[in-house]
Amino acid sequence: MEPTVTWRDGAVVLIDQRKLPLHEEYLTLADHRAVAAAIRDMAVRGAPAIGVTAAYGLAVALHATRAEGAALAEEFEAAAALLAATRPTAVNLFWAIERMRARFRAGAGRDRTALAEAALAEAQAIDAEDFAACRRMGDLGAALLPPGARVLTHCNAGALATAGYGTALGVIRSAFRDGRIARVYVDETRPFLQGARLTAWELHHEGIPATLIADNMAGHLMARGEIDAVVVGSDRIAANGDVANKIGTYTVAVLAKEHGLPFYVAAPISTFDLNTANGDAIPIEERPEEEVTHHGGKRLAPEGIAVRNPAFDVTPHRYVTAIVCERGVARAPYAESLRALAEGQA
Amino acid sequence: MEPTVTWRDGAVVLIDQRKLPLHEEYLTLADHRAVAAAIRDMAVRGAPAIGVTAAYGLAVALHATRAEGAALAEEFEAAAALLAATRPTAVNLFWAIERMRARFRAGAGRDRTALAEAALAEAQAIDAEDFAACRRMGDLGAALLPPGARVLTHCNAGALATAGYGTALGVIRSAFRDGRIARVYVDETRPFLQGARLTAWELHHEGIPATLIADNMAGHLMARGEIDAVVVGSDRIAANGDVANKIGTYTVAVLAKEHGLPFYVAAPISTFDLNTANGDAIPIEERPEEEVTHHGGKRLAPEGIAVRNPAFDVTPHRYVTAIVCERGVARAPYAESLRALAEGQA
Repeated sequence: MEPTVTWRDGAVVLIDQRKLPLHEEYLTLADHRAVAAAIRDMAVRGAPAIGVTAAYGLAVALHATRAEGAALAEEFEAAAALLAATRPTAVNLFWAIERMRARFRAGAGRDRTALAEAALAEAQAIDAEDFAACRRMGDLGAALLPPGARVLTHCNAGALATAGYGTALGVIRSAFRDGRIARVYVDETRPFLQGARLTAWELHHEGIPATLIADNMAGHLMARGEIDAVVVGSDRIAANGDVANKIGTYTVAVLAKEHGLPFYVAAPISTFDLNTANGDAIPIEERPEEEVTHHGGKRLAPEGIAVRNPAFDVTPHRYVTAIVCERGVARAPYAESLRALAEGQA
Repeated sequence: MEPTVTWRDGAVVLIDQRKLPLHEEYLTLADHRAVAAAIRDMAVRGAPAIGVTAAYGLAVALHATRAEGAALAEEFEAAAALLAATRPTAVNLFWAIERMRARFRAGAGRDRTALAEAALAEAQAIDAEDFAACRRMGDLGAALLPPGARVLTHCNAGALATAGYGTALGVIRSAFRDGRIARVYVDETRPFLQGARLTAWELHHEGIPATLIADNMAGHLMARGEIDAVVVGSDRIAANGDVANKIGTYTVAVLAKEHGLPFYVAAPISTFDLNTANGDAIPIEERPEEEVTHHGGKRLAPEGIAVRNPAFDVTPHRYVTAIVCERGVARAPYAESLRALAEGQA
């Protein structure tokens, strides 16, 4: 498989995740507006992957223009605003844009070519750092699992959701390598089916034993003693350890607590949002009704029925056994442990 | 809407629930093997509706044959065995077949025409009694809800799942009539989507405010204080009050407990299985993988991925606030309260 997101000749190249697993199609986007649309319409998704894509999107904007000076700075800010408006919940998006902005401003006075090159270098650094962070947190997280574990995961926090290797699936990849995985139960993850389409595809490709289930089956399997641990990713972690992640994650956390199972979150430090005190302050995206009413492109719910489609939920920190990042493993009290990791003191 | 199941000129007539809500198509089945296939393939589903349909199926068998005496009894038993083998979890199926068998045996020595007429009368009695039971439990259950309640339901325990009016939806219908329902949240109920296709359709038709959600959104709404109570049906209730119902019900019950919400079960006495001590002894049907891997008739999960598809789960009695049947409301300890209701002493 190609990288999830990459740079080629002034363009962002990414696999169209809406077409997976049936079709492996790549999009080549040489316009930052097309990059923003790809994020908004979920051709690329997953908090770290969105951050990397937005960074490349700003590099695209600087490569595509002929503006200089104040006009260039204006174009940069317009592109940053457009990319920031695509999706509200994943904080990696804003983190990556802010990092690109800092690099752009640090080059004030230089010409467009130099600024475009610097932007590309910064985007590639974000990309490479995310990949390295996933490898590192994968190895750190794997050590938390017992040998032969049967692990449940929700949504796709895999290679496709990151620069590569994955966060939750990075933990699972490392753990499988170390003999710690007997089977992965994959929540299909309604309504967008990232589990059925993406996680099942990644695991099946790598020969990691995986079983697909509907989201509402996890409780039944836990009650029967068929699951040993839960590992998920995150889109934003508040200062107190509250975790925003794909809708349904909170339900899995409640079930894990009810059955005495550990609930682990794997996410890079770019997912930490220490300026947000707790989960109540995290904006939750509501997505189009059609994602719920239509199945396989076909309407199956009656016309006119009201629909709710929150794309994320918040798992309060009291349900979280540990948060794994590239610098270590945080445990309660999270206000202290997350800050220490973010400041590189852990 | 026509009745869910009815008798017309020697045949069972039923609405094909697989085609709802997009198409209202009726099947006319004059052969008990076709009736068995309709149950197995879920053209008709819902524990009470399955019982009524199987009863009519035996009446069909006696109307269609020309056998008499021992040969007729043999045909009756073969038809009963075929109908009993369609689905394992809903106990109403076995209860209805047993009741038809008792009526058949009570007519020993009479000719085929008399036995066929008696069978039809018995099936129609089962049908009428189920409808009356739903009306009665609807009114009893409605009194449990506060005015203006926002109620979550899972799967379809509606008119389509019964002879009419519904069990859980019977409670909701009566409660709406009494001003006790502000809104019904409808779990879509993967994988067969009985909520999205059937419950949403029933409620929308009747003008009861209803909002469709994916199953994994209920926890999020409960955490935000948007749900006041849960009402579900059941396919089998063990002597100790453990409740088998559509997969995902157990997860809803755990969530209700976690949020301090009442969890009500509505089911007629024909759903009680007092010969089964507890939920561990209830057989759980596993259904075809395609129900999970395909959406709207289209495969969306990768080829070769393993799948689990249990159609039901068991909610232990400690999660159940009350069980409503046509004779009253049972509360813990259920071993005593269910037996008293079943024996008509409550």
